[in-house]
Amino acid sequence: MNQPSLGPARWEKLGVESRLKTRVFEVTGVQYRHGPRGTTREFSVIQAPDWVNVLAVTPEGRCVLVRQFRYGIDEFSLEIPGGIMEAGEDPVAAGTRELVEETGYSGTSARLLGSVHPNPALQANRCHLVLVEDARLTHPLGWDEDEEIEVSTMPVDDVFALARRGGITHSMVLDAFFLFAPEWEAMRVRCGR
Amino acid sequence: MNQPSLGPARWEKLGVESRLKTRVFEVTGVQYRHGPRGTTREFSVIQAPDWVNVLAVTPEGRCVLVRQFRYGIDEFSLEIPGGIMEAGEDPVAAGTRELVEETGYSGTSARLLGSVHPNPALQANRCHLVLVEDARLTHPLGWDEDEEIEVSTMPVDDVFALARRGGITHSMVLDAFFLFAPEWEAMRVRCGR
Repeated sequence: MNQPSLGPARWEKLGVESRLKTRVFEVTGVQYRHGPRGTTREFSVIQAPDWVNVLAVTPEGRCVLVRQFRYGIDEFSLEIPGGIMEAGEDPVAAGTRELVEETGYSGTSARLLGSVHPNPALQANRCHLVLVEDARLTHPLGWDEDEEIEVSTMPVDDVFALARRGGITHSMVLDAFFLFAPEWEAMRVRCGR
Repeated sequence: MNQPSLGPARWEKLGVESRLKTRVFEVTGVQYRHGPRGTTREFSVIQAPDWVNVLAVTPEGRCVLVRQFRYGIDEFSLEIPGGIMEAGEDPVAAGTRELVEETGYSGTSARLLGSVHPNPALQANRCHLVLVEDARLTHPLGWDEDEEIEVSTMPVDDVFALARRGGITHSMVLDAFFLFAPEWEAMRVRCGR
């Protein structure tokens, strides 16, 4: 019955049940049926709103960075700004909002670099990566209750080098760098780097 | 009491309680105390073994890819091979093992490109990214029960271009591409690309 030559089979989703709700995600048990095999299994899937991360570049070609304590790794982490999108919010609008809220920076242009899946095996949501050019410090800071954020800027080339030697480890932040790299090759000339 | 000029405070971990166990991860409630504020809060942290992903390049400069159905996104996903590390396993050994198990390919050299955090805000584990050069089809396939994997190869430059236009969306796979990009610039000459 199984025909490997046709490639992997699409599993059929039969139902979803909640297993645990937390403030920022929900774990669900998803029943899947494998058509060709006729078997049914439950897989655990983490549901969460979409996330957004913002790569903001100043007119001098510096990247806006945030450093904060992260409970997941029980350690400080250097990242680009980001957060949880609100229901119905546009990714670029959400990125622009998070950038201002966390750093006080805003730019004259903002657009989507791309959208990734944090973990296709276990998570349903996406993370959107937004580029903001001509970023400048324009707003007073407005932190969330749980956020304590140290803001800095660093030349984009130094940020890439730091990331490649392990100084920036957040997977979705590195995704933004991968998507941005070809554009930076063009931008750096304009930034006089 | 709060002294923002000193930068973000390190939260003190007081204790960890299990909230949910699944086959591939556990959700814990972690009690943290914020020293300067004197407040205590619980944060949800996803615990899992470390993961590994393998960027395998053939002598012709092609990247080994796998396509499989992913329950998290309820969709097929094109990725580099990878999986869950075994307890005490070395990342490079794990990567070499996963590459052979999923694709039948092996190489003459293997080394760590870098290690990332899938999500510092919510997860404790790391994902190790391994480079294998001179990868060739050398072994018969040995799939896990839940794996149905379609193996292919594609020129590295085409893989990068596909990823940048949204055809590869797995965040940790894109991390491997970011870390590998400068090395590829040197390798491509040897591969005659």
